[in-house]
Amino acid sequence: MIHTIAPRSGVAFELKRGELLKVIDPMGEQVADLVAFNRHDIGEAISSGRSIDYASRIYLSTGDPIYSNRSGIMLLIREDTVGRHDFLLSPCSAEMFRIIYGDAHPHRGCFGNLAAALAPHGVQPDAIPTAFNVFMNVPIDARTGAIRVEPPLSAAGDYITFEAQMDLLIGLTACSAGQSNNFSYKPIQYEVSAGA
Amino acid sequence: MIHTIAPRSGVAFELKRGELLKVIDPMGEQVADLVAFNRHDIGEAISSGRSIDYASRIYLSTGDPIYSNRSGIMLLIREDTVGRHDFLLSPCSAEMFRIIYGDAHPHRGCFGNLAAALAPHGVQPDAIPTAFNVFMNVPIDARTGAIRVEPPLSAAGDYITFEAQMDLLIGLTACSAGQSNNFSYKPIQYEVSAGA
Repeated sequence: MIHTIAPRSGVAFELKRGELLKVIDPMGEQVADLVAFNRHDIGEAISSGRSIDYASRIYLSTGDPIYSNRSGIMLLIREDTVGRHDFLLSPCSAEMFRIIYGDAHPHRGCFGNLAAALAPHGVQPDAIPTAFNVFMNVPIDARTGAIRVEPPLSAAGDYITFEAQMDLLIGLTACSAGQSNNFSYKPIQYEVSAGA
Repeated sequence: MIHTIAPRSGVAFELKRGELLKVIDPMGEQVADLVAFNRHDIGEAISSGRSIDYASRIYLSTGDPIYSNRSGIMLLIREDTVGRHDFLLSPCSAEMFRIIYGDAHPHRGCFGNLAAALAPHGVQPDAIPTAFNVFMNVPIDARTGAIRVEPPLSAAGDYITFEAQMDLLIGLTACSAGQSNNFSYKPIQYEVSAGA
């Protein structure tokens, strides 16, 4: 069963160890922010700092683990038809829209959407980590360290599949930041299935 | 008064709003992992993901703010004689030494040193964020995203000075990872002074 996340919104759901989570870009050039917590102890969450350190690479793709703040493997990337995702940037937020774009009445962004979706599961906003930003395209200038947010490389129907390595609570959005999705807010789809 | 942090150890201390924290590399090529928490509400901590997002740059230096997970400015970089620091990687840890180096009896690393130093202040290990890794030199291959940990660019006496923008609890180490300090474990020094 394929679920659709409406533009500029987010959801939370459980993903059991061994299950597969397929995140699909149905229209192309759309980003999905993904966070994950240990279902049985939400103090354990995905860690950009540890995942990048252990991979010795900032761009993760097929075969790469996503580690937790306790160095446990939470997710393994099993398939990836795009090969470009971001793991550096926090979810977009009202504060981000104010600081970067100068919005006077900003959207609550992926951060607000994740906070609302995760609150019933006991996750506090302060505990929302840097997300694995599926399909987000953030090239870097190696000399200066400058980053740019460019349109995703994903076309309609592209996807990435994760296998859960422990029982997880997942937060997932259809991203609310114009720059990350080429200024066209679109849905994201996902499917949970039993593993091999 | 200049304090010395012994090789492979760490400290925690308070830094009041407006005070200056000068972190000095007394011998050259040594890294210091820095974390900061709101002294009055330790749920607020430095955020690599927000700081990099708002700066649009992974390498921060003079003039750049270090933001919290609530988008508050915690520290401002006022002086920097080196200009190359890392804000991507988690503090080195026993798990990191096992996973990357295969150490059977690993050192507790900066993570263990920070956890021990911060515990009396109520900070749990799970809450230790990606550190601002002072003097750590992590070049990136822009095409593949591969990172390398190279010797710091700091020479003896080089320093960076931060100005606190709120009352803070600081954790600071003399880093325990061989790769980050050219395989020579050395001390780090720091000085706290009244601001201008």
